[in-house]
Amino acid sequence: MIKFIDSGVCAAKGFTAGGIYAGIKKNPDKKDLAIIHCVKKCNAAALFTTNKVKAAPVLLSMQNIKDGMAQAVVVNSGNANACNSNGMQVASRMAELTAQSLGIDKNDVIVSSTGVIGQPMPLEPLETGIPMLAAEIHQLGSDSAVAAIMTTDTFPKSFAVEFELGGLTCHVGGIAKGSGMINPNMATMLSFITTDVKISSFMLEQALREVNEATFNRVSVDGDTSTNDMVCILASGLAGNSEITEDSADCKAFVEALYSVMVNLAREVARDGEGATKLVECVVKGAHDEEVAKSVAKSVISSSLVKSALGAADANWGRILCAIGYADGQFAIDKVQVTIASSKGEIIVCKDGSSILFSEERAFEILSEDEIRLIVDLHSGECESVAWGCDLTEEYVRINADYRS
Amino acid sequence: MIKFIDSGVCAAKGFTAGGIYAGIKKNPDKKDLAIIHCVKKCNAAALFTTNKVKAAPVLLSMQNIKDGMAQAVVVNSGNANACNSNGMQVASRMAELTAQSLGIDKNDVIVSSTGVIGQPMPLEPLETGIPMLAAEIHQLGSDSAVAAIMTTDTFPKSFAVEFELGGLTCHVGGIAKGSGMINPNMATMLSFITTDVKISSFMLEQALREVNEATFNRVSVDGDTSTNDMVCILASGLAGNSEITEDSADCKAFVEALYSVMVNLAREVARDGEGATKLVECVVKGAHDEEVAKSVAKSVISSSLVKSALGAADANWGRILCAIGYADGQFAIDKVQVTIASSKGEIIVCKDGSSILFSEERAFEILSEDEIRLIVDLHSGECESVAWGCDLTEEYVRINADYRS
Repeated sequence: MIKFIDSGVCAAKGFTAGGIYAGIKKNPDKKDLAIIHCVKKCNAAALFTTNKVKAAPVLLSMQNIKDGMAQAVVVNSGNANACNSNGMQVASRMAELTAQSLGIDKNDVIVSSTGVIGQPMPLEPLETGIPMLAAEIHQLGSDSAVAAIMTTDTFPKSFAVEFELGGLTCHVGGIAKGSGMINPNMATMLSFITTDVKISSFMLEQALREVNEATFNRVSVDGDTSTNDMVCILASGLAGNSEITEDSADCKAFVEALYSVMVNLAREVARDGEGATKLVECVVKGAHDEEVAKSVAKSVISSSLVKSALGAADANWGRILCAIGYADGQFAIDKVQVTIASSKGEIIVCKDGSSILFSEERAFEILSEDEIRLIVDLHSGECESVAWGCDLTEEYVRINADYRS
Repeated sequence: MIKFIDSGVCAAKGFTAGGIYAGIKKNPDKKDLAIIHCVKKCNAAALFTTNKVKAAPVLLSMQNIKDGMAQAVVVNSGNANACNSNGMQVASRMAELTAQSLGIDKNDVIVSSTGVIGQPMPLEPLETGIPMLAAEIHQLGSDSAVAAIMTTDTFPKSFAVEFELGGLTCHVGGIAKGSGMINPNMATMLSFITTDVKISSFMLEQALREVNEATFNRVSVDGDTSTNDMVCILASGLAGNSEITEDSADCKAFVEALYSVMVNLAREVARDGEGATKLVECVVKGAHDEEVAKSVAKSVISSSLVKSALGAADANWGRILCAIGYADGQFAIDKVQVTIASSKGEIIVCKDGSSILFSEERAFEILSEDEIRLIVDLHSGECESVAWGCDLTEEYVRINADYRS
């Protein structure tokens, strides 16, 4: 029984979090610095961008997570601290300041940054901001933390669940930022997750990898894999369950809870893609293997032409079939069926890889909803997959033409 | 000595071409049907889309080109004749009507279509249009043919060259249509090329493949590989040179001439990308192998974030470095240098994979030109490659949201 609750990364026992304006962003009405802290050292795991260009905080965090332990996360928005000659120095100083302010080991701090790449990152806002934030963190909470990791996001992404392991109440909560530079390759955005489940670092990483592959890695906004992507999980173990050390029933229950949080974060990241007006879910079924299903689902939600058509609620299924056609993997295109669906109902728009008669008015009505589903049946097997994306609008271009100014 | 001349696909001896409005497009002020015809049967070669969804005319033309011979090309715009249950019937009828009207064998007709996918393709306009066009083809010419293959293109793409083989004047001429659904995978748009060079079908195909790889395959507008892509060449042999049957000096001269035509068509296709305001050329050098250079060049010109920034003349080199970073292949990102250039000069914006000081005003001035070059030096070898793309503007989205309406 998984129950959704409030309080994001503060839902799990032992965690506090907060966010403030430290002076990195130009606009003082926004927040730009967040800390998540646990009262005790946690088992921890993280996944990082596959881009060969890795921001300094990514490189530092890769080192700090190696021992499978962490106790705090410090994140800034407004500057990616990537491709600067003094990047590592600034990232290390962020860890140091956080450690000093919280009275923990600096090697137990995960550091993360998001924002413009290649701009000098000023130290001053951090020198004053981090101690200030650490001092008032108990008064702030998860909502202020998630606000502080946002860049072009239009709304915060935060989910938490409660579930039971052996009669004990456990929690998983997470926050994420998305919006641009989102493409399925490893951790595809910033996301920080906390849990009070007792679980070994090894199993925690296994669980994170498995769930990440089924959630964040199945999202694409614009095909760009960022230099700063990271998803990180801290497990305090304070729920008191007997430690998960193998692929047990408890482990499955934990994975399920983790999935509930991460899949919702992933969907919200897709929904809030830069300039997006709707969440697009592509479900591919009837594939002879899962890789083909994944590849087709990603191909459909990544096509600029499909995305542009969906922005106009235009049932241009030919573009969907075209995007299916250039996906990797072999399958018979003349068996493909495409259905469009939303809360307004569903309608088949393509059968046996060919046009069929359908009501354009009805299709328009279905596609005018803000959450739509494209169901692709390959009719050649039993495997399926899903991917999430969004429509492409003029607003995406406006945002990204103006981003640095 | 290669000299650029006029008259497109009619430059080579033996060829006539023309285009008319036949009634496939809604707007009678446009043209939508073109024929290219040779007085004699030609050695011919063609390359087709790699999309698993292949339009009926692509499937038919793949059959008809198998013997390495062709005598005419018939093309319509306004309807892709793809994913229709009667597609093959319509495509066959197009070949038949063309053959009858021109008095040639229907197996020597290359058929091509471009436009909306999955709409029923009406036969009537073709039944009357093809005989009418064939009858007046001598009065029409290459310009009317290129006009008839355009969809959302804003200008026609046509080039022809004159050169010598053994003292004899020879010609290569070509036309192309591009605009949307353009991504480097085999033939990436429609292009029809004629020459009067005498060359075996085998060597003609070799030459076409080689030049296509270096030109059309290096263009991306939006990452979508169309269902209808085709590039086709017909060689009349009427220049009177001794037949090219091997990789000789004559063959090299022919390849060079063919490259001159195709590279210019490719660049114009990129320049006229849907909604584009500028041609973006990415030159990658210093790679340890050519595949890496290709992959990096493609990655840069395909990034929506780079393209959006360039539309605003914003020297957001961090996005360029990010796109370099997620390209396939291994290389040291900390050696990478990025230079932006145009007719207004050039400026280094990133050195050793890091930010360097540069004048944003100067960068803006350089990027405000309508033809810009991004020079990426990987500093790790001697290989290089190039790719062409365009900026991404709100107009792209407007065009593709409205395309069917």
